[in-house]
Amino acid sequence: MSIPTPDRTASDRATPDRRTLIADAAIATVAAAGLRGLTHRAIDTAAGLPAGSTSYYFRTRTALIGACYARIEELDLDDVADLAGLDGVDDPATTHGAERPRPLSRDEAAASLGALLHHWLTAGRERQLARYELSLEAVRTPELAVALHRAGLAARARAAAVARALGAARPEEAGELLVAWTDGVLFDRLAGAPARTRPAPDPAELTSLARRMLDGVLAPGR
Amino acid sequence: MSIPTPDRTASDRATPDRRTLIADAAIATVAAAGLRGLTHRAIDTAAGLPAGSTSYYFRTRTALIGACYARIEELDLDDVADLAGLDGVDDPATTHGAERPRPLSRDEAAASLGALLHHWLTAGRERQLARYELSLEAVRTPELAVALHRAGLAARARAAAVARALGAARPEEAGELLVAWTDGVLFDRLAGAPARTRPAPDPAELTSLARRMLDGVLAPGR
Repeated sequence: MSIPTPDRTASDRATPDRRTLIADAAIATVAAAGLRGLTHRAIDTAAGLPAGSTSYYFRTRTALIGACYARIEELDLDDVADLAGLDGVDDPATTHGAERPRPLSRDEAAASLGALLHHWLTAGRERQLARYELSLEAVRTPELAVALHRAGLAARARAAAVARALGAARPEEAGELLVAWTDGVLFDRLAGAPARTRPAPDPAELTSLARRMLDGVLAPGR
Repeated sequence: MSIPTPDRTASDRATPDRRTLIADAAIATVAAAGLRGLTHRAIDTAAGLPAGSTSYYFRTRTALIGACYARIEELDLDDVADLAGLDGVDDPATTHGAERPRPLSRDEAAASLGALLHHWLTAGRERQLARYELSLEAVRTPELAVALHRAGLAARARAAAVARALGAARPEEAGELLVAWTDGVLFDRLAGAPARTRPAPDPAELTSLARRMLDGVLAPGR
């Protein structure tokens, strides 16, 4: 191909929309067709771009999947801020830890987490399914594991910040467990054995489930 | 192909070893290479069988994946019986529910569940990874969803029986939550963002985590 490889450090910022468009098309494709559907050519088509576009921005499959991780993490964190009202909670990455934690009630946090679960089981369903698919691909690909790890740190830092605002004795541990349990509940409802016979997600039931999870991760450890 | 399609109702029982060998090879292949690696020809090779063997026993991809679900479930339940010492706990599918529940202490159950988690993160790792991959495939394939649902019922019934033996007020709900949280913890440690930097699974830490999960699912609902 005669198109030059783009400079990935400086010129990236000049074309954010095209790269985002491609990452979004790749995420939707993986959700619909699995990793088998993820080819550069298929993403050109899915994104409505000329042939060769995806290869131009993301030369390798690894680079393309890395972009998906970053985009999923960005959208997930946007959801946390928009839907869960948790953006006022201190993020240790920007405010240096427990300096000024805004106190958060457990009821408030349960309502927020319940709303997040509902969103990720309905409007955000595709992205969550793609996240599981793409995470499994990283198990087989060391380069991807590095990119996934980088993308996943922000979500875990945010969960730890929420746990800290709720008064957790060990916020990092509580946040990590909350992420794991949330992942399990989402997986079970999206792809687990009983998923096909489940009724539509119920916001009140999910808030009650969120409360159970918060009580569990905030209970004193043994 | 000139090999006749086998009678799947009567003659199956005459050749269990060959079918099991194929299912095991398919599970290992999916763990190592993802769904992209799952072709009838690749499984012939992986199982060390003559070309055409996998097609003979499982004509379609759907039939082959259905066999994987059943085999994974069988092996998972064997692990529960062998490692967790929970085989004495009443299974409602065979003993009609709460007639004779053997009481189980929470410490005993936590030790058993911790041992199971450790096994599934070490020797049983491949099978668990394959389970996630194959479950996601069922989201896209209604026929597979039926097979997955059938295979998954036994595990959930077993989890509900354990919850019942532990005195849960609503054992089905507690069992379902326990399955979801266990799935989330396994996924997080096998394929989640921090998986690559984690130390080797520690039995004592996993037993303590299991205790947290049991306390959480057995807490009175709100």
